[in-house]
Amino acid sequence: MFQSAEIEQKLSKEDFRAIEPGLRTELLKFQQEMTEKKTFSVLLVVAGVDGAGKNKAIARLQEWMDPRHIVCNAYDDPTEDERLRPPFWRYWRDLPEKGEISVVVGSWYQEPMRMRVLGACSKAEFEDRLFRINQFEEMLFNENVLILKFWFVLPGDEQRKRLKQLAKKSRRVRHILEEWTQMMDAEGARETVEQVAQRTSTAEAPWYVIPSLDPEYRDVAFADVVRAAMKLRLERGEPDSISAPAVIGGVRRKTALDAIDLTVRLEKDEYEEELDHWQAELAALTDKKGFRDLSLVAAFEGNDAAGKGGAIRRVTAALDPRIFRVHPIAAPSDEEKARPYLWRFWRRIPRRGHIAIFDRSWYGRVLVERVEGFCSEADWMRAYNEINAFEQELTDAGIVVAKFWLAISEDEQLARFKAREETAYKQYKITDEDWRNRLKWDAYAEAAGDMVDRTSTSAAPWRLVASQDKLFARIDVLKTICKRLKAAL
Amino acid sequence: MFQSAEIEQKLSKEDFRAIEPGLRTELLKFQQEMTEKKTFSVLLVVAGVDGAGKNKAIARLQEWMDPRHIVCNAYDDPTEDERLRPPFWRYWRDLPEKGEISVVVGSWYQEPMRMRVLGACSKAEFEDRLFRINQFEEMLFNENVLILKFWFVLPGDEQRKRLKQLAKKSRRVRHILEEWTQMMDAEGARETVEQVAQRTSTAEAPWYVIPSLDPEYRDVAFADVVRAAMKLRLERGEPDSISAPAVIGGVRRKTALDAIDLTVRLEKDEYEEELDHWQAELAALTDKKGFRDLSLVAAFEGNDAAGKGGAIRRVTAALDPRIFRVHPIAAPSDEEKARPYLWRFWRRIPRRGHIAIFDRSWYGRVLVERVEGFCSEADWMRAYNEINAFEQELTDAGIVVAKFWLAISEDEQLARFKAREETAYKQYKITDEDWRNRLKWDAYAEAAGDMVDRTSTSAAPWRLVASQDKLFARIDVLKTICKRLKAAL
Repeated sequence: MFQSAEIEQKLSKEDFRAIEPGLRTELLKFQQEMTEKKTFSVLLVVAGVDGAGKNKAIARLQEWMDPRHIVCNAYDDPTEDERLRPPFWRYWRDLPEKGEISVVVGSWYQEPMRMRVLGACSKAEFEDRLFRINQFEEMLFNENVLILKFWFVLPGDEQRKRLKQLAKKSRRVRHILEEWTQMMDAEGARETVEQVAQRTSTAEAPWYVIPSLDPEYRDVAFADVVRAAMKLRLERGEPDSISAPAVIGGVRRKTALDAIDLTVRLEKDEYEEELDHWQAELAALTDKKGFRDLSLVAAFEGNDAAGKGGAIRRVTAALDPRIFRVHPIAAPSDEEKARPYLWRFWRRIPRRGHIAIFDRSWYGRVLVERVEGFCSEADWMRAYNEINAFEQELTDAGIVVAKFWLAISEDEQLARFKAREETAYKQYKITDEDWRNRLKWDAYAEAAGDMVDRTSTSAAPWRLVASQDKLFARIDVLKTICKRLKAAL
Repeated sequence: MFQSAEIEQKLSKEDFRAIEPGLRTELLKFQQEMTEKKTFSVLLVVAGVDGAGKNKAIARLQEWMDPRHIVCNAYDDPTEDERLRPPFWRYWRDLPEKGEISVVVGSWYQEPMRMRVLGACSKAEFEDRLFRINQFEEMLFNENVLILKFWFVLPGDEQRKRLKQLAKKSRRVRHILEEWTQMMDAEGARETVEQVAQRTSTAEAPWYVIPSLDPEYRDVAFADVVRAAMKLRLERGEPDSISAPAVIGGVRRKTALDAIDLTVRLEKDEYEEELDHWQAELAALTDKKGFRDLSLVAAFEGNDAAGKGGAIRRVTAALDPRIFRVHPIAAPSDEEKARPYLWRFWRRIPRRGHIAIFDRSWYGRVLVERVEGFCSEADWMRAYNEINAFEQELTDAGIVVAKFWLAISEDEQLARFKAREETAYKQYKITDEDWRNRLKWDAYAEAAGDMVDRTSTSAAPWRLVASQDKLFARIDVLKTICKRLKAAL
């Protein structure tokens, strides 16, 4: 979820000044329209640690909109009135009416997360809390509340630095800092936060990550999601899944993919040595007795011509041919089209002791199907959770799920495409479709970035592989598989 | 969920013979239409203990339909192929393709239920299993699989008797009987089964209870739900919530309400004595120190003129006026209409040590709003789960939730309506609307029956109160509240 948190997103003062008037005009226009129509209300849930400037972003949004119809409800320790009633009571009490906007700070996420990080509730209680939160938000969605959830993030170091600065000025912040340090140092704290974000990012109420290092970008990003979502809700007239806008404040939204360092490379002789080493390691690991109780499912995705096939061949070369199968995933068969989209992958799940390698995978749902419009926005928005559930079934059954995104630059792709056209025995590898897809580079990048953010789980994390240098990429893939298998054995 | 299980539903041989041809014709017609259109598939999940005749009902359905497009998949102990893969694999493998029908016996419910009853998994693991089942079925729903789930039930005694008879003939059944006895005698077994049915009865995939005492009724009921659901799915063209038909095989579907014995009564002097006793008891209980940590939410529903007001007055007469409030629930205010329907009840939740009495309640959603069409079928179908979640929040916070359905017969209502019209000081109690509602007696009875089936939980059970005799009803209400409070204290 927070893969894109460490990325720097900026907006210059000039760009900010250029964007502001248009953004304000639209925000006010849509707000007025919703106030008149009174067909839905808006609930903005704001989360993220102190120091990210949540309050400033909220203040700015309120300044930009009609203040009579947007209120901020901040929840701290419960009052006596609240303590004597069920925990959700205070949030219900303050629900906005149709036509109104409410910003919620210190929401229903605060308490379960704190409890869990501090070890004050069991995993089971915690999961139950998340389940109930989903139920609650789904109900709101169906009851015409447009819920938008924002997670304000800072790179880890920056966060600590800011809190320390603030702590000098205020006792309250000193207290927060202590608690925060205690929390984040606690074992599994980051994982808990990730888990919360992932489990509760539903098609009905997804989280939007707001990189907050740059105040101008932060405020515009926050307001721009609100603007875009209100616009869509007004256009569509009824509850519908709404994804994050591709462009925020005129700038393409960056994702984890933008942070991949494509310059890394490996010399030929070094490569040969590493290749021998890791292939031998992989052969040994899959030959172990313990592997008979495991299996491996590896999924390869990436830019066209990034070298998926080559990387896969380096993996399979190390394997006993009796225990693996490579599944190239192209258009589904008639039989597959007639069933839920995950069926074609379930039928290929290997038995224990076996390996299935997917050259393209179930992620097609949120990549090509999304970009090409083969399924509706609601369909691919719900797919993130469906895929996470699918992979959880696999990992729970002792299957190691390794997912690779092989990344190259736009220029490198062009060079490879041309080389393919010019080499006779490589021509089969390049089609008109490849060229067509290339024209949608940005759309695919956005889809891939969202995919990594929303489906990188602790049990089945994405490995982003710099593939500008094919040799480096192949070793990275082999090494990752070996490490994952070793950990599982 | 199984409140209606103990009720006898019958179909005479003649009626059966009269119904059969029409039912078969329609089943075949709809099946043919879906086979041609290939826009959705049908998954019939069959559950319930052995002895109820599930297999016979399935066989009959297959006989009535085109056997080339309906298969039965029965799952027992996993095969080697299945054991070596994730538990859901075998169900995925056999998913029907669009245009096809699959009957599933021994489904994904079997294993978690067995594990839980035998104490082989924790409450947390169990809840997690149910959560995943819901996710799975919701995905199927969205992927154009029409899922219909049937729970075949027998009155408890009958079930035991049948199994014993069968056990004489077969070793397999002896084994089942032993396991079944062991399971049902285990503490909380019935509760577990109830919980499964309740938590997994969603708007997308609700359970239908099939009373199976009479084989003709059983087979017709099963087939008729299939027929009605296929019809609606074909008409609507896309996934939508589908409730159980009101009339099955030409007979009104009976519910738990039909089993209320309305003949019970209380003599005046006995009533006076009991009234004194229970009012004193209630006063004492709510005056206890321990009550300051509790609260009571009592909801009164029932037929018009069943005596809700009178019963409520006998309760409040025993209470300290500073700690209770009675909330008559009529049409919502403008403020209430502009928010999710549960908001008006949340705002009236009492603080600890206090009591809220609702004269009509949040159940309006699944009663008057359903019957009068004030909300869509999808809206009231999802409301059962939303209400269960709401009441769980209350009971978890130490609130005793007591729900009463006050029942009278149609004739008794007529007599009371007339008496109201003839008595000057009672005329305010009767309106044109009451007469209009009376014309929809059957629709209200069906809605109330479904409501009791789907929202009677172990933490917040419905109390069905025979109110033909007002005196009996009042004492029953008082007694129930006292018992619930006593248990909580």
